[in-house]
Amino acid sequence: MESVIIEMAKAARRASAEIARCPSTLKNEVLIKLADLLETQAAELKVENAKDIERARDKGLSAAMIDRLTLNDAVIKSMTAGLREVARLNDPVGSMSQSVIRPNGLEVARMRIPLGVIGIIYESRPNVTIDSAALCLKAGNAVILRGGSEAFHSNQALAAVIASVLGESGLPETAVQVVPVRDRGAVNILLEQEEQIDLIIPRGGEGLIRFVVANSRIPVLKHYKGVCHVYVDADADMKMAENICFNAKVNRPGVCNAMETMLIHSAVAERFLPVMAQRFSNAGVELRGCSKTCGILPDIKPATKTDWHEEYLSLTLAVKVVADMQEALNHIAEYGSDHTEAIVTGNYQTARRFVREADSSVVLVNASTRFNDGGQLGLGAEIGISTSKLHAFGPMGIDELTTTKFVVFGDGQIRV
Amino acid sequence: MESVIIEMAKAARRASAEIARCPSTLKNEVLIKLADLLETQAAELKVENAKDIERARDKGLSAAMIDRLTLNDAVIKSMTAGLREVARLNDPVGSMSQSVIRPNGLEVARMRIPLGVIGIIYESRPNVTIDSAALCLKAGNAVILRGGSEAFHSNQALAAVIASVLGESGLPETAVQVVPVRDRGAVNILLEQEEQIDLIIPRGGEGLIRFVVANSRIPVLKHYKGVCHVYVDADADMKMAENICFNAKVNRPGVCNAMETMLIHSAVAERFLPVMAQRFSNAGVELRGCSKTCGILPDIKPATKTDWHEEYLSLTLAVKVVADMQEALNHIAEYGSDHTEAIVTGNYQTARRFVREADSSVVLVNASTRFNDGGQLGLGAEIGISTSKLHAFGPMGIDELTTTKFVVFGDGQIRV
Repeated sequence: MESVIIEMAKAARRASAEIARCPSTLKNEVLIKLADLLETQAAELKVENAKDIERARDKGLSAAMIDRLTLNDAVIKSMTAGLREVARLNDPVGSMSQSVIRPNGLEVARMRIPLGVIGIIYESRPNVTIDSAALCLKAGNAVILRGGSEAFHSNQALAAVIASVLGESGLPETAVQVVPVRDRGAVNILLEQEEQIDLIIPRGGEGLIRFVVANSRIPVLKHYKGVCHVYVDADADMKMAENICFNAKVNRPGVCNAMETMLIHSAVAERFLPVMAQRFSNAGVELRGCSKTCGILPDIKPATKTDWHEEYLSLTLAVKVVADMQEALNHIAEYGSDHTEAIVTGNYQTARRFVREADSSVVLVNASTRFNDGGQLGLGAEIGISTSKLHAFGPMGIDELTTTKFVVFGDGQIRV
Repeated sequence: MESVIIEMAKAARRASAEIARCPSTLKNEVLIKLADLLETQAAELKVENAKDIERARDKGLSAAMIDRLTLNDAVIKSMTAGLREVARLNDPVGSMSQSVIRPNGLEVARMRIPLGVIGIIYESRPNVTIDSAALCLKAGNAVILRGGSEAFHSNQALAAVIASVLGESGLPETAVQVVPVRDRGAVNILLEQEEQIDLIIPRGGEGLIRFVVANSRIPVLKHYKGVCHVYVDADADMKMAENICFNAKVNRPGVCNAMETMLIHSAVAERFLPVMAQRFSNAGVELRGCSKTCGILPDIKPATKTDWHEEYLSLTLAVKVVADMQEALNHIAEYGSDHTEAIVTGNYQTARRFVREADSSVVLVNASTRFNDGGQLGLGAEIGISTSKLHAFGPMGIDELTTTKFVVFGDGQIRV
């Protein structure tokens, strides 16, 4: 197995030079052909997917897991729509920016270039195979994909379709490779190929991500979890605050940009909390409050210290009354995960200060935390969210799968 | 010792929040006060520096090492000039760019923010202490400096001056700390503080850098070496090629952006090499040639395979005749270090292709490799050069000591 993975990594490195030079038109053709072929081969894909689903049922996987594993017409349609969307994105490769003329006449600019070889390690959703391959390819990178073992047959079938399109288009089939081994040891070997792989992006739960970070010799872009806060300021419009908090918690509670802790300025807590609690209660949200919150809402559970760290990913919400914005910022600095923070306020200075001092990848004023998403922020498709500051901080789109080099145009300049 | 380093790292993390918020005016005042104080305390600094020099002489260090260690008036003047230059640089912190209005009215932009805490690990030059502290501070970061043990007394004296200026200005003295321990084990402990330190930048020889990379749990920005190439194309202006190659090799042979291998298109080799070899010979440059080169210049040494990998850092140069630009690009891909490559050509298509396909941090057309330098490329002072593609590729100035977060301004938007 080890030699299989090492060979894949070397083949990816070789393919990367060719993909880096591939013109946009050809990359876009490949993406559109791939979308067409996935549609015409839907029946065959479902047959392979059925093998995974049968195995998952035999192993007693949860209904939610099986749901995420299933390739039905709706999932295939979303994959092909995604491919066509990536085909429409501007190609960043080769574009130049920040051009300056130096006093000696040298023209200096930065040219956007692919990163090289990217490894994606993910869990059961087979659509990640197509989404990730498309973005990496469009950004001029070769990619090695390692999906969950539950989706083994589905991913192999998708890999075969991708390879056939690449081959037909005269591009190296090894530009997109899916690890053909179920064994988790394959991941460890992949994470040691630092000479061939430039970046690892894990997509999945905190356990998977911690495993990847602990075992990788290659730089990893990741977020562990999203403990997102909304701070309702004393100068907030109460109705706006209510709508934003409700949306941030209830719109899709199982995702990383949902609110997990609500912070309320003490000056408005007595006015805001009873109304908000009623609305949350109607939606089935369970509250856990600090002592001041419990003073105002005597029927709710008291929060313990672990609640402030919690990414519930469900209809549970921690609630804390703070004396002022400084206490809110201190709470976020201590318990937050650098993911997403929002403030609701009508005060100009307060908004400016929150935006500067909340040290998270996305900071919003008067908008729901749910907008931390590449599509919503205008990046097009996203490959993940980074909560570490190097290279990319926040949602990562196609540009974050590239870097820049300096290009210098001269007329014979030498250094004196 | 371990607890000393851990406490330093924690203090740096605490200080980083305050430095991140520090207004430009105050940061610039600190830098200028520091320059003034270094000048008035020059005599005291030289007394401490003399202790290091005496110890270095006792240990039998080379004259070159002792030269790099020496704090004389010229070195102090260059440090204070550097401080005043950094004070004049635009402050990147808080500036916003890439602002877009989304269809739902959200305004999305990226705000430049400090990285947090930066660790700099370097060798004997004490001026690096001041240069690095200045750039990190101006970019809003706290910094931990660990200079070579040979410069121990000099660095401690510089640290005391910096701390006194920070303290007088009402800023935390722990925003800039110099490791007060000679033992190399201190470096290992520093490299394990991944919760407190965001980035490590090693500055020095390849041995130091490999040691740091092998032992760090924190991301490292570095280059190992500069095996820089100049490719003289068939369509080059011969006189321009001669001047560029001469400058790239001879101007300052001991630095990373000096040319180490010269590649010549076979169509012009017989015309170019004898003239160039004569000029190199007059300057004391020793050539090592491929078989074709030796055919044209029978008096020179033949190159062995190790020569193509070599960073001589001296007046030695490897020379190879290539059949075409593809062979030059293949040679660079195989033996280069992703640092700096230059082409000399008058051909438009050739220049465009070289710029795209040479996969190094700085690629030049008709200019000397010696321009790979932050100051020369217009970045202002530089903190080093990165030859890995994540976060920064090429010379790193003040912007590369920051990152961006997303800021979103709304009017109550929720996600539907």
